[in-house]
Amino acid sequence: MRMVVLAGGIGGARFLRGLKRAAPDADITVIGNTGDDIHLFGLKVCPDLDTVMYTLGGGIDEAQGWGRADETFQVKAELAAYGVGPEWFGLGDRDFATHIVRTQMLGAGYPLSAVTEALCDRWRPGVRLLPMSDDRVETHVAVELDGERRAVHFQEYWVRLRASVDAHAVVPVGAEQAKPAPGVLEAIAEADVVLFPPSNPVVSIGTILAVPGIREAVAEAGVPVVGLSPIVGNAPVRGMADKVLAAVGVEATASAVARHYGSGLLDGWLVDTVDADAVAEVEAAGIRCRAVPLMMTDVEAAAAMAREALALAEEVRG
Amino acid sequence: MRMVVLAGGIGGARFLRGLKRAAPDADITVIGNTGDDIHLFGLKVCPDLDTVMYTLGGGIDEAQGWGRADETFQVKAELAAYGVGPEWFGLGDRDFATHIVRTQMLGAGYPLSAVTEALCDRWRPGVRLLPMSDDRVETHVAVELDGERRAVHFQEYWVRLRASVDAHAVVPVGAEQAKPAPGVLEAIAEADVVLFPPSNPVVSIGTILAVPGIREAVAEAGVPVVGLSPIVGNAPVRGMADKVLAAVGVEATASAVARHYGSGLLDGWLVDTVDADAVAEVEAAGIRCRAVPLMMTDVEAAAAMAREALALAEEVRG
Repeated sequence: MRMVVLAGGIGGARFLRGLKRAAPDADITVIGNTGDDIHLFGLKVCPDLDTVMYTLGGGIDEAQGWGRADETFQVKAELAAYGVGPEWFGLGDRDFATHIVRTQMLGAGYPLSAVTEALCDRWRPGVRLLPMSDDRVETHVAVELDGERRAVHFQEYWVRLRASVDAHAVVPVGAEQAKPAPGVLEAIAEADVVLFPPSNPVVSIGTILAVPGIREAVAEAGVPVVGLSPIVGNAPVRGMADKVLAAVGVEATASAVARHYGSGLLDGWLVDTVDADAVAEVEAAGIRCRAVPLMMTDVEAAAAMAREALALAEEVRG
Repeated sequence: MRMVVLAGGIGGARFLRGLKRAAPDADITVIGNTGDDIHLFGLKVCPDLDTVMYTLGGGIDEAQGWGRADETFQVKAELAAYGVGPEWFGLGDRDFATHIVRTQMLGAGYPLSAVTEALCDRWRPGVRLLPMSDDRVETHVAVELDGERRAVHFQEYWVRLRASVDAHAVVPVGAEQAKPAPGVLEAIAEADVVLFPPSNPVVSIGTILAVPGIREAVAEAGVPVVGLSPIVGNAPVRGMADKVLAAVGVEATASAVARHYGSGLLDGWLVDTVDADAVAEVEAAGIRCRAVPLMMTDVEAAAAMAREALALAEEVRG
C-alpha cells in the first residue's frame, strides 16, 4: 500500500507515528511543508521537516512536540551574550547541529531534498520524507502592528507574536515560482491513498498545495484523498489555526475546513465525535464524512485515527 | 605608551595578559595571526583570534589554554551522530556560538576586522585586536603521508596529526596577495614599541610577517622591536614549534630563532635563564639579548616577562 501524506509540524508528525503503527508495512511518502522555514543566525532552519524527522526518529521533545529531547541551550545563551537575536526562537544545542549540517550541505550545492535524505539517514524515520519543494518558499503574514500594516515571517507571527494580532492575509512568498521537489509528483501519481493529517489547512497543507502542480496531482491521482479535521469543537486542537483561517475567510469549524479544501480535492473527511452534527453538512458538499475521536492523546489514539482514515479511504474507493 | 604585539594563540594570549598587568595604562594593539583559520562545518573558525579574545576577556579554558571555560559538547556529539566530521577538532557549544556569529556577519558582508571588533564588544579584552588581514590566508604544511607527498591544512597537521610527521614546507597560502587589515600598518607606524611574544616564529609570527607590508612596517617603524624566545632549553615551551622550524631550516634553539628573525627586524631578544649561553651568540648577530625566566607559569610570571621585554626595549632605545 503506497501512501502519500501532506504534513505540517506537530500534528502531522504525531499522525504519522500513528499511521506507521496502524499500517506498519505501508510505503509512506511524506510531503513536508517548507513554507515556515527560516534563516536564523545564518543557518537554515526547517521546523516542519525536523519535527517529522525527530518525531518519527525518536529524537523529539515529547512534551513540547518540537525540538530535541534532553536539550540544552548553551549556544543560544552565548548568542544572546553577543547581543545576536532573535531570542524568541528556541533553538537548542542538539537542534543547532541539524541546522549546521543542513546549512553546510546547502552551501555545498545540495538541494534541500538531498539534504533531508542525508539527515534522515541518521534518523531513519521509516517514511520517505520529501520537502514540498527545493525552491525557497516563505510564508508571510500581513498584520497590523502599532497602527501600521506590514508583512512578517510566519515564524515571527506564530512564535514571537503568538498570533496575538489578526492575520489579514497569508502569502506563501515564492510558491508560484516553486517546483515540486524531485519525487513529489511521482509519489502522488503512484499513491494508493493520499492523506491530510490534522495539520494546519492554511499554513501547512495549504502551502504545500500552493506549489504549482501539487494540488492538481492530488486532485487527478484518481485515488481516495482523506483528511482529518484539525478543528475540534470549533477550536484548533493545537496552535492558532483559527487566526490564519480567518485570514483566508474560512470559519474555524470542522465543516468549513472540509469545504475549504472542497470536493474537487477531498473525497473523505473525519471530524471529531463532538462535531458529529457537521457530518451532514460535509456530505452535502460531496465529501464522505465520519465522526470519530480525533484527539491524539497518545500513539495508540493516533493509530486509531489513522485506521479510521484508511477505512474511510476504502469506503470511498468502494 | 603605544604598543603593538604580533600574536599567535596560547603563548601570545598569556603574554598579553601579563603585559596588561605590567603596563595597565598602555594602549595595546594586537595583530593576530589568521593563517590557522579554518572552515569547519561551514563555519569560519579563527583559533588564534579567539584564544586572545577569550583569554583577555576571561572566557578561556585555563587548563587547556584554548576554547571556552565550562564548555559542553552537545553540538559536536550530534554532528558526529550525523557522521559529519572532522571529529578531531574540539569545538564546544559555547565556542560554536562565536563561530556562528562570525560566519553570519561575514556572510552579510562584514570584513573579518569588523567582525572581530563586534565580537570584542562582548569580551572587552582591553586591547585592540586586529586580524593581520581581512583576506583569506591559510597555512598549509607539506608532509609525507603513506609514502605520498601532500599538503594539509595547518590545523590538520597540528591537531589531527599532532605534528607526528616531518613538515617539509610551511606555506601561508594567499599571504602574497593579502593586504594588512585596516589599522594594522597605522598601528605599527604609531607604535612606541613592537613586541613578539613567545609565539610560534613560523606559523604564528612568521605568517603575520608574510603579509606584504607588515614586515617592512615593523622594520621601518624606528622603534624598539623586542621578542621573547618560545624555545627554552632547545625545546618549544608548548606545542611543536621544532617541527615547523625544521621545515624552514632553523634549529630549535633560542639563538637560532633570534637569528631567523634577524637584526634587520629585531632589536632585542629575551632568552630563558637556562639558555644564558645563547646571549653572546644573539648579541654577535647584532641583537641585544638578556637571559630571564621565560616560563609563563601564571599571570605574574607573564607580567615579569613583559616588564623585562619593556625594560630591554628602553635599553635598546637608549
